[in-house]
Amino acid sequence: MSRIPVWKTIALSLTEDIAEGRYGEGDRLPTEAQLAATHGVNRHTVRRALADLADQGLVHARRGAGVFVAARPTDYAIGKRVRFHKNIAAGGRIPGKRILALTTRAADSTESEALALPAGAQVHVYDGLSLADGQPIAVFQSVFPAARFPGLPEVLTETRSVTAALQRLGVADFTRVSTRLTARPANATQALHLRLNEGAPLMFSTGVNVDPDGRPVEYGRTWFAGDRVTLTLGED
Amino acid sequence: MSRIPVWKTIALSLTEDIAEGRYGEGDRLPTEAQLAATHGVNRHTVRRALADLADQGLVHARRGAGVFVAARPTDYAIGKRVRFHKNIAAGGRIPGKRILALTTRAADSTESEALALPAGAQVHVYDGLSLADGQPIAVFQSVFPAARFPGLPEVLTETRSVTAALQRLGVADFTRVSTRLTARPANATQALHLRLNEGAPLMFSTGVNVDPDGRPVEYGRTWFAGDRVTLTLGED
Repeated sequence: MSRIPVWKTIALSLTEDIAEGRYGEGDRLPTEAQLAATHGVNRHTVRRALADLADQGLVHARRGAGVFVAARPTDYAIGKRVRFHKNIAAGGRIPGKRILALTTRAADSTESEALALPAGAQVHVYDGLSLADGQPIAVFQSVFPAARFPGLPEVLTETRSVTAALQRLGVADFTRVSTRLTARPANATQALHLRLNEGAPLMFSTGVNVDPDGRPVEYGRTWFAGDRVTLTLGED
Repeated sequence: MSRIPVWKTIALSLTEDIAEGRYGEGDRLPTEAQLAATHGVNRHTVRRALADLADQGLVHARRGAGVFVAARPTDYAIGKRVRFHKNIAAGGRIPGKRILALTTRAADSTESEALALPAGAQVHVYDGLSLADGQPIAVFQSVFPAARFPGLPEVLTETRSVTAALQRLGVADFTRVSTRLTARPANATQALHLRLNEGAPLMFSTGVNVDPDGRPVEYGRTWFAGDRVTLTLGED
């Protein structure tokens, strides 16, 4: 039956300030010295409170520049039907996609297994960037069987949306059969696209989508910026 | 219809060496200079191949020491029933739990909301470490309503298992109503417990478990070591 420690009281007070908008997204918090003076505690206690907020993803420190309020993460539902556009719009944000590359090449062994293709079959590969309100939230690579969807690159160039493109090519619906998730450090290219530091934590997801007959139509890999996206499961 | 680039060929060959056990968990790969000589390429090409393996989580570089084969990650099913012991045993590994702290204190606002408790209600807090084959794979904090389970800390001390403890206290079954996932950098304490570098990417999961009447029995937060655990969804 312990009392709330002083650092936690300060963390809770700052959390409330952020929740109520006294400090908005991207705002710099007062310095450690200022916070210590305001709350009548030493800087060690303030540091513990700020570390707690950082652990919660509410703020992030930039070396030499101060502590800043983090953007509120976007919820992203991983369920039977994973639809980027709908997911982002459901959170009141404007979804966007940017094409980084469209390539046609031989599938590697992981891809041919996931898509149930013979070894060496050709695949279309869509490398892209996902945005919410113009902010990059994920880089992705989607792989499709080329023989089944010969015109896919042209349709993707036009629509940028996987759902819209597959629909136009006769796949009225598709569902997620499996998703695997882990955390990875951002490499240089991912960091550049996502405007993060190299080594920043990403959520790495792989998944297979199948058509109503159970045939795989897409093998997708997505690297989500850890501080910008919260994946939600079991809420659909 | 592009050909496979040279760096990718080297990456695939090393992947095969690892898959077939020529290099085992924790083994050091040959140096860049040795690999460059073996494959008749320059070190830049070797570096690109190694970066690709690192991106896949197959190897990790230790500054000044070389490049090592990573431990094969443990699959961990996130479904309707999330059971640590069963999950780890299903992967052919020996599950283990270590108690870091058992505390009884007032719930914070997140906890009381998640557990549907009045503000300021007391909760039991179980801070622990999860292991697979003796290797730490996650730190966790589980929060329980103290009024409903007065004897929980004693039972947990004995069993260490949440499932076993709740069962003994009359909760024959419980199911996961929601899970939220994001990626976070390891803080100093987490890094110490998980034997990782500070800042290493963790998967941070929060979830609520309810009893058969839909009453919340546990609010859990887990920080999984990103390179040691793959969360699997929709495979149950």
